[in-house]
Amino acid sequence: LAHLTDIYLSIHGWVVVSCIGASIGAIAAMLNIITEWLSDIKLGYCTTGFYLNEKFCCSGVDAGCPEWRHWSSWSIFNYLIFVTMSVCLATMSAFLVKSYAPYAAGSGISEIKCIVSGFVMKGFLGGWTLLIKSLGLPLAIASGLSVGKEGPSVHYAVCAGNVIARCFPRYRRNAAKMREILTACAATGVAVAFGSPIGGVLFSLEEISSNLSLKTMWRSYFCALVGTGVLAAINPFRTGQLVMFQVHYDRDWHFFEIIFFIVLGVFGGLYGIFVSKWNLEVQAFRKKHLGRYAIEEIACLAAITAIICYFNQFLKIDMTESMEILFKECEGEEDYAGLCEPSNRSHVIASLLFATIVRILLVIVSYGSKVPAGIFVPSMAIGASFGRLVGILVQILYESHPESGFFAACSKDGQCITPGTYAFLGAAAALSGIMNITVSVVVIMFELTGALTYILPTMIVVGVTKIINDKFGKGGIAEQTIFFNGFPFLDKEEHVFGVNVSDVMIQGISVLPSYGMTLGEVEELLKRTKYGGFPVVEDTRSMILSGYIGRTELQYAIERAKRSSPLQPTAKCFFTTPDQRPLHPASVSAITANSASNGNSVVGDTYDGDSALVSSRNDGSFTDMQTSVTRFKMSRSTSPQPGPLRIDIPNDQGEAPTLLPAVVIAGQSSTTGMPEDDHGGIHVDFSQFIDITPITINPKFPLETVMELFKKLGPSVILVEHRGRLCGLITPKDLLKYQFNKH
Amino acid sequence: LAHLTDIYLSIHGWVVVSCIGASIGAIAAMLNIITEWLSDIKLGYCTTGFYLNEKFCCSGVDAGCPEWRHWSSWSIFNYLIFVTMSVCLATMSAFLVKSYAPYAAGSGISEIKCIVSGFVMKGFLGGWTLLIKSLGLPLAIASGLSVGKEGPSVHYAVCAGNVIARCFPRYRRNAAKMREILTACAATGVAVAFGSPIGGVLFSLEEISSNLSLKTMWRSYFCALVGTGVLAAINPFRTGQLVMFQVHYDRDWHFFEIIFFIVLGVFGGLYGIFVSKWNLEVQAFRKKHLGRYAIEEIACLAAITAIICYFNQFLKIDMTESMEILFKECEGEEDYAGLCEPSNRSHVIASLLFATIVRILLVIVSYGSKVPAGIFVPSMAIGASFGRLVGILVQILYESHPESGFFAACSKDGQCITPGTYAFLGAAAALSGIMNITVSVVVIMFELTGALTYILPTMIVVGVTKIINDKFGKGGIAEQTIFFNGFPFLDKEEHVFGVNVSDVMIQGISVLPSYGMTLGEVEELLKRTKYGGFPVVEDTRSMILSGYIGRTELQYAIERAKRSSPLQPTAKCFFTTPDQRPLHPASVSAITANSASNGNSVVGDTYDGDSALVSSRNDGSFTDMQTSVTRFKMSRSTSPQPGPLRIDIPNDQGEAPTLLPAVVIAGQSSTTGMPEDDHGGIHVDFSQFIDITPITINPKFPLETVMELFKKLGPSVILVEHRGRLCGLITPKDLLKYQFNKH
Repeated sequence: LAHLTDIYLSIHGWVVVSCIGASIGAIAAMLNIITEWLSDIKLGYCTTGFYLNEKFCCSGVDAGCPEWRHWSSWSIFNYLIFVTMSVCLATMSAFLVKSYAPYAAGSGISEIKCIVSGFVMKGFLGGWTLLIKSLGLPLAIASGLSVGKEGPSVHYAVCAGNVIARCFPRYRRNAAKMREILTACAATGVAVAFGSPIGGVLFSLEEISSNLSLKTMWRSYFCALVGTGVLAAINPFRTGQLVMFQVHYDRDWHFFEIIFFIVLGVFGGLYGIFVSKWNLEVQAFRKKHLGRYAIEEIACLAAITAIICYFNQFLKIDMTESMEILFKECEGEEDYAGLCEPSNRSHVIASLLFATIVRILLVIVSYGSKVPAGIFVPSMAIGASFGRLVGILVQILYESHPESGFFAACSKDGQCITPGTYAFLGAAAALSGIMNITVSVVVIMFELTGALTYILPTMIVVGVTKIINDKFGKGGIAEQTIFFNGFPFLDKEEHVFGVNVSDVMIQGISVLPSYGMTLGEVEELLKRTKYGGFPVVEDTRSMILSGYIGRTELQYAIERAKRSSPLQPTAKCFFTTPDQRPLHPASVSAITANSASNGNSVVGDTYDGDSALVSSRNDGSFTDMQTSVTRFKMSRSTSPQPGPLRIDIPNDQGEAPTLLPAVVIAGQSSTTGMPEDDHGGIHVDFSQFIDITPITINPKFPLETVMELFKKLGPSVILVEHRGRLCGLITPKDLLKYQFNKH
Repeated sequence: LAHLTDIYLSIHGWVVVSCIGASIGAIAAMLNIITEWLSDIKLGYCTTGFYLNEKFCCSGVDAGCPEWRHWSSWSIFNYLIFVTMSVCLATMSAFLVKSYAPYAAGSGISEIKCIVSGFVMKGFLGGWTLLIKSLGLPLAIASGLSVGKEGPSVHYAVCAGNVIARCFPRYRRNAAKMREILTACAATGVAVAFGSPIGGVLFSLEEISSNLSLKTMWRSYFCALVGTGVLAAINPFRTGQLVMFQVHYDRDWHFFEIIFFIVLGVFGGLYGIFVSKWNLEVQAFRKKHLGRYAIEEIACLAAITAIICYFNQFLKIDMTESMEILFKECEGEEDYAGLCEPSNRSHVIASLLFATIVRILLVIVSYGSKVPAGIFVPSMAIGASFGRLVGILVQILYESHPESGFFAACSKDGQCITPGTYAFLGAAAALSGIMNITVSVVVIMFELTGALTYILPTMIVVGVTKIINDKFGKGGIAEQTIFFNGFPFLDKEEHVFGVNVSDVMIQGISVLPSYGMTLGEVEELLKRTKYGGFPVVEDTRSMILSGYIGRTELQYAIERAKRSSPLQPTAKCFFTTPDQRPLHPASVSAITANSASNGNSVVGDTYDGDSALVSSRNDGSFTDMQTSVTRFKMSRSTSPQPGPLRIDIPNDQGEAPTLLPAVVIAGQSSTTGMPEDDHGGIHVDFSQFIDITPITINPKFPLETVMELFKKLGPSVILVEHRGRLCGLITPKDLLKYQFNKH
């Protein structure tokens, strides 16, 4: 049996990850099917089965069939139905979100970045959010709003991971392991949205996780593999393919085309900068004026979108479908709306230009609205229409000067420029521009389409976009949204401050002396202040640092002590282990008394110090984040004797926690025992709850290094100590505040 | 002009990286051409031009042509020429390596891992190594030895990067920036070897760099892009393709095949474990017995390889070519040596089995021998032959039971199993097994062949391999070689020690008191000890820590002081800035005197504290690594007054250095001035060279956290301090030693 338990423990993690991956894959498949059906229902219905979408109704025939009927033979009536349905779907989505899970609005990537980097947002990853996001997403997409499914896909994947992993105590109690799981879920979310497992893993590394760990990468790999495997097995597209569509380019690219690729790259960069700037403006406006009219706003947006888009061949159809059409080579494939017709070019150009501009405007107003809404696919669709436009222009240029030296590399059969590849590259540029990611975009584009020959052009385009973004932009839209919303997040950029930590640290902090404060005073301190924790010093005169205790740990410890037996507020508190206590008679006698007492009341109880990932519906406000930033997580052994205390320090990389060596209180059988001291008073010993190795630094430490310490080791606080004496402390928030004021 | 300088500075980094990338691309193209020619010259020669290889001679006709002649019409004579040529080529390569650059032997990946993680190996990345590696590599590969070009490709790329970057003071003086460049070069090395730019970047992340930084990733991306771009422009294969070969699979895979994919994955894992174990045994034997017979050993190896391999159709040809053949679908393509002939199967099976086993044995004895030798392609070739074998067996199984329920998913046209895909997956498994990498293998395989449909099977196979490796193996061959050679390297694995730093730290260390030691005593200390640096304490009684000085900094400071003017060994030394000095009369007067003196002799001079990457031929021993571990790098402003001292703390992630705020010695115009003090003695002030913010920790710190600090912040030493007093110190080497003794 013991052997079996061993085996179970060793595969436990993989079983959990497999369950999570499979669930995400199954949800994704379901959502794909629902979305396709809802999208088509706006245009008509299937006579053979109401629940069939056009493709299944016509069983694979692309051009439609008699079984699939439009709602009416009057086109004006069809138009009205289209608009009405769009508004209905969008309103339903907004209603669900507003009524049941405000957190399900938007993309969620910004928030997940913060959560994975160690901050706390209650309820953001709860089961209720998962349900509403999964229901609202197909509605929002089917309504025709310019929103994508990838951001929300990451969000529901992470919710699913959180909900499932919380069923296992091993993860519920360990924030570091939990973050590892959440990172893997984010990877799987992208993987199932795009059918791009490796792209998902890289996206998670590049965008979500704050620090690479190979272990997290391997978890993500495994989770994404299971997720896409399940998706492939369910096969929602009935194409047998993982990917939404696959393009194959017969022609290779030419070196002279690099000039046009650079144009596309520049477009991507500018698109990213422009859209993120104006989207934030719109979000500010929304926050200020539209807070109470979320549903009405969505209804209006859907109506406007439907009214305008119905008349443009590229806007009317689903964005994925539109990309597929735009990516195509013209040869040997069926034509869509005269896209390949040379005679039709001026119309196509006007149409593409219109589609590009309108879609940009729609994305600016739609992203961030109160429905599940991503920005990946809309951006790609914009890039694709712009790219195709450039491609056609280049083709015209070539056809008018086929003999020019510039086009010397072209083969003489008259086919030189493939506008479809420009659309492909434009999509990559726009995606890279808006998210400010590079390697993941290349891999995603690559997995999405299989266009291997175009790997170098893709890299060039994405590289140019990145350069533009770095030079003129302010980072990806997710990071900008974090900054805009004031979430606590240490970004990956390097900042030059040029000051020492002593200029920024908080001085005059509330400390706990290792002995002397009464319980009443401690409670008063807790009530009076909102600090996340308190340094423990030997005495308030010398200020020699001896440890640190978090607010939640202290509150818990007091609660436990009080519950075990009635305590006077005059009871004095110990905050150091006996071996650290200065040896003056009073304390020695106290220890002796203490060791004789018995009060193992806290035994058999586990304390969940990290309430971060509690799944619960909540009011949707972020205010609770202000106080609940806690990165330390304690778990206690359940042996009858108060056993060794384990403090798992989670680190941002989501690595396994470092196991601190056991702190055993010698000669003491109770932590909350209340011996009487010489003077008849009562002692409470909190030493077990003290972190005796907080991270400390010299006041001369440059702030840049402090930033690095926070980012790489992920403590909630760093104490500043000079010659053994506490001078101050600094938290990530102090640093962020300083950074914010400086910029 | 100032504006132009600004522009220059902002694009400087990109210019350097572009130069490096372009050089690597050009070298790779050149090596490809030479290798192909040398490989073919063993078999025959071109009558139209001696310098043409078979493919160019016959201008693209695959099956040979009259212009390309075998050396003789007697096959026995051809055989002898083949063997002789092989031996000659291998011997030349070994001779070059032994005589001119011993560091050019082997793959170099292990050493580069150590260098990028911050350790020092003099001459390993020098110009001489670059030259010999570039010359020796084509010879070694053309000789037919079972060695690949990828490891050496990484090595020469990193050498080229080092040689070029050292021409720019900005990089020469900054070890952190240098490491960033070197990581990018490693990525480019893989990128040009495989024609797989993204695969290269990921390989660099997963295998080479010790910690992910997005900036390094972006540099790698850019460098790999330029490198592969140049390679594509030179177009050495004259195929217009970046990749060695491209396969296209018409048939999709079936879910029942997963069982066989798992078999391939298990093979990959076992292959990795088996080969790395026995290869290390062979290396131990080589070290012990063959040290002086390197050239003879290579000659024998080449002879044996040639004698055996000539008679096997898969071993005789180049490994890349053999992979291309094995990967192919049989339909519609020309057959090679009856591989697709059903009648020929038993012969093919025997041949593949023979090829697999012989190649495994050859790899075990060849990898690590004293010629440039990689293990990527040999492993892939082994995996491919084994995979094809499995594929053919599965095909036979299917053909004998086509109606079985197990094969129900097969289409009824009789074509169900594609042995070529098994070869492809086998190659992925073997590569993953030997290097213990996952994501990069998937991307490399993918970029190498463009087989998009097979991404899930590839991930499954690689995943299984990874599981086997994690469960039974000891990590990739590169890490095992590091361990075997005793290189200082903190691996990425997590270790559980369960002890505090106080149990491991070095106590009784040599310290420098802030004032009081004479110059003679300091010099004596330097001579007597080999420590990498010395903590500075206020006085040896109180042991209050005030800073740290590295050995090289101290030596340099003494040298400068002595050069500026004659110094008595009795001159007393200051190791603290005036504001840190305890205020006793003697020191105050000394400072006053000091400030009146003038001795700006060190001005206008730059000090290269990091001699790590000096390009020089050396004796090839690693012993100098024992003492030259230095991670701190100082550069001084060249203003006429001894300006602020900048200390760049390089961190392992290759990020930009943190700029410490300037340490300006108040009221002091010289750092090495020698004022006379009250007693007629002379003072030397070394305070400018002291790092006043060394990383310090509490003695109770768990060793795991110390390991993390070293890995993530990359200091050369961590001081242990309790209540302001120095208790000991710990270096990565102490940690490694402890780890080594424990395991």
